[in-house]
Amino acid sequence: MLRILTLLLLLPSTAFSFSTLPRPLPPISTSTSLSAKKKNVIILGGDGFCGWPTSLYLSDKGHSVTIVDNLSRRNIDTELGCDSLTPISSPQTRVSAWKEVSGKTIDFHNLDVAKDYDKLLSLIKEKKPDTIIHFAEQRAAPYSMKSTKGKRYTVDNNISGTNNVCCAVADSGLDVHIVHLGTMGVYGYGSSGGEIPEGYIDVVLPGGRESNILHPAYPGSVYHATKCLDAIMFQFYNKNDQLRVTDLHQGIVWGTNTPQTVRDERLINRFDYDGDYGTVLNRFLMQGGMGVPLTVYGTGGQTRGFIHITDTTKCLEIAMENPPKKGERVEIFNQIAETRRVRDVAQMVADQTGVEMKMVPNPRQEAEENELDVSNQKFLGKGLNPTTLESENGLFSEVVDIVKKYKDRCDPKMILPASYWNKDRAKACEGMDIEKHMKN
Amino acid sequence: MLRILTLLLLLPSTAFSFSTLPRPLPPISTSTSLSAKKKNVIILGGDGFCGWPTSLYLSDKGHSVTIVDNLSRRNIDTELGCDSLTPISSPQTRVSAWKEVSGKTIDFHNLDVAKDYDKLLSLIKEKKPDTIIHFAEQRAAPYSMKSTKGKRYTVDNNISGTNNVCCAVADSGLDVHIVHLGTMGVYGYGSSGGEIPEGYIDVVLPGGRESNILHPAYPGSVYHATKCLDAIMFQFYNKNDQLRVTDLHQGIVWGTNTPQTVRDERLINRFDYDGDYGTVLNRFLMQGGMGVPLTVYGTGGQTRGFIHITDTTKCLEIAMENPPKKGERVEIFNQIAETRRVRDVAQMVADQTGVEMKMVPNPRQEAEENELDVSNQKFLGKGLNPTTLESENGLFSEVVDIVKKYKDRCDPKMILPASYWNKDRAKACEGMDIEKHMKN
Repeated sequence: MLRILTLLLLLPSTAFSFSTLPRPLPPISTSTSLSAKKKNVIILGGDGFCGWPTSLYLSDKGHSVTIVDNLSRRNIDTELGCDSLTPISSPQTRVSAWKEVSGKTIDFHNLDVAKDYDKLLSLIKEKKPDTIIHFAEQRAAPYSMKSTKGKRYTVDNNISGTNNVCCAVADSGLDVHIVHLGTMGVYGYGSSGGEIPEGYIDVVLPGGRESNILHPAYPGSVYHATKCLDAIMFQFYNKNDQLRVTDLHQGIVWGTNTPQTVRDERLINRFDYDGDYGTVLNRFLMQGGMGVPLTVYGTGGQTRGFIHITDTTKCLEIAMENPPKKGERVEIFNQIAETRRVRDVAQMVADQTGVEMKMVPNPRQEAEENELDVSNQKFLGKGLNPTTLESENGLFSEVVDIVKKYKDRCDPKMILPASYWNKDRAKACEGMDIEKHMKN
Repeated sequence: MLRILTLLLLLPSTAFSFSTLPRPLPPISTSTSLSAKKKNVIILGGDGFCGWPTSLYLSDKGHSVTIVDNLSRRNIDTELGCDSLTPISSPQTRVSAWKEVSGKTIDFHNLDVAKDYDKLLSLIKEKKPDTIIHFAEQRAAPYSMKSTKGKRYTVDNNISGTNNVCCAVADSGLDVHIVHLGTMGVYGYGSSGGEIPEGYIDVVLPGGRESNILHPAYPGSVYHATKCLDAIMFQFYNKNDQLRVTDLHQGIVWGTNTPQTVRDERLINRFDYDGDYGTVLNRFLMQGGMGVPLTVYGTGGQTRGFIHITDTTKCLEIAMENPPKKGERVEIFNQIAETRRVRDVAQMVADQTGVEMKMVPNPRQEAEENELDVSNQKFLGKGLNPTTLESENGLFSEVVDIVKKYKDRCDPKMILPASYWNKDRAKACEGMDIEKHMKN
């Protein structure tokens, strides 16, 4: 696999054309981003699926960007025997290509946020960032449920990492704003019968006492649990050390490229299609592009929040430009564009690509059907004009085009679910022959 | 220090007399413990301040006990340059002395619950315990706030340990009941104006929706935060893998010995008097016994829950004998005998010992004054007849006697606070000359 990648990278970048991609979107016009002072930002996990396009977007907007990444996501690909569908370049090639294309410098540091505390602290002291964006967590629920190793790595990496970031910022004595990528999954996907507010919820306690509390945590996987734990750590360090923190509870990200990553093949973003890291909509688009049936888990009645990768990058800048003041509580935004039922999303993909849907047993322990009514007023109020699945058919087909372009790199077996939430779920999925379905 | 300990251990155990100690208490009469089937129990952290007397109590009651401990508490003593006031024996000596005294065998395994996952899993599969009692966490709030090292160790050890325990029980396929020692500190020490229920609280959500949720987490230190994180992990593994879990939110433990630990000098429990590990009441009793002023942090207006170490051991058996059924949610007990304001506790000690109180700047970031109204009906309903500070003057003076007996082993400098919650608190405490006070 490494050899193939190397060969691809040796080809001139013009050997690949992006003619089938939509034109880059115009830059976002938020009320704050254009006029604000340019920031100095460290992006932890800046080589990942959200981290890389965010790094480019912020650099493109004139902010000074330093990437920190230990390349664990690439190493997990090696462990799982899979790879990004798109031929991603090494971080060194990525940043030099960006320099070539944009004239802008992005610094890259390979260090482990969960382990290399002293290096992290030194880097913070040296760079004196205005903002640290923290993406440096294992981010796949299925990987976190796949095995003992996956459970333990997710907890150890994510919790130690977040604690190290908070601890290092407090240690540094600098007034750094931490922006963290959380997940909508912290709220759980039950049907509570009301709108999910942004982070905090009004409650009446016994005796008629009114309070506004952190939304109760209902994680559905070890991965989601780590984001709930992060939230409590942020509450603590905010209270004890007056750290300024913004936590972004993001929905499921779809799409691949952004206006920045399409500027050169060497800047291409990763696209995960495997059963562990491939998010549901991208997985459907992949199957649509390959012309095989869409595999819908259970009834497909799960309602989830969705956001396009380009909007992710914009949300990060909005969050960065609107930090809480010193002494204010942790700011929490819900980072989604829309909510959709999984089977409806599958139907949209089926309609566009002409492939059929197949319901398969659900490998996850979760409610078969749920409603999801989520507030996302904060980002809308700060100028985000989100891309939705229907409003931007161009983006929808962009992914299908990517799939068609790179389908020779796809190992169809990897699309199958490979993680079961518990022994009952594994049993329920025994004998499901998705591979056969896929050959349909 | 090791040499002194060795010398002490070479003396025959009869060389020390416990004539000044009160008679051992009669065994607890709970409605369940005497009639119930004897259990097979693994005690993680069974060498510690709560773990050791609990191990002896359960062994004494006829349960089959295996201790797992990596001796980290003893190693932290080495790191801090302090030691238990009481001359504790090595775990090997402890269990062989117990065999000699009681005829009962306790197995001891030195392994790190947070790191040695495979050994932990093998032990569980081999022993097939009915119950795992999980004390294996760094348990001092001041140590968790002392330094970057303390913060990181507390998070890494406690969270990885709890995740490993849950993961190993799920992996083993055995229906093991996990009993975990939490802390009252998960509820925070604000003045919320109502009784703190046992773990779950009734709330009314927007739109009049009624719900019963895990009590919101308000940790006041990194240590307390880890117990909040544990609570979320238990919720998750309970829901996903139907683990049966009991979480005990304990108050501040006081006292040293129990009816089991007084049976031989080699069985003596540890007594921590240093600024990091010495809990507030034991610290006051130590100062009283030494004839130096009691150092009260801030106004002493903090209200806390208290429990005697003998009651801790009884509560653990009650929790073990009353596991939740398969599929029931996590059971939570508040494990306290009474609540007291710190300055009132200091006054009691001052009255009994004739020393004076000194108010000193508070090294902790916390409310100066708080009320604390806590339900402990569950343990009372299951037969606990708790020792209180006033009801048992014998136990109160027992600690003073221990202090007098071993005061030559005390390093008075170690009683000083050595951890500050943040830079402001460190500054506030600058120039406070407690050492001078202590020589008063």
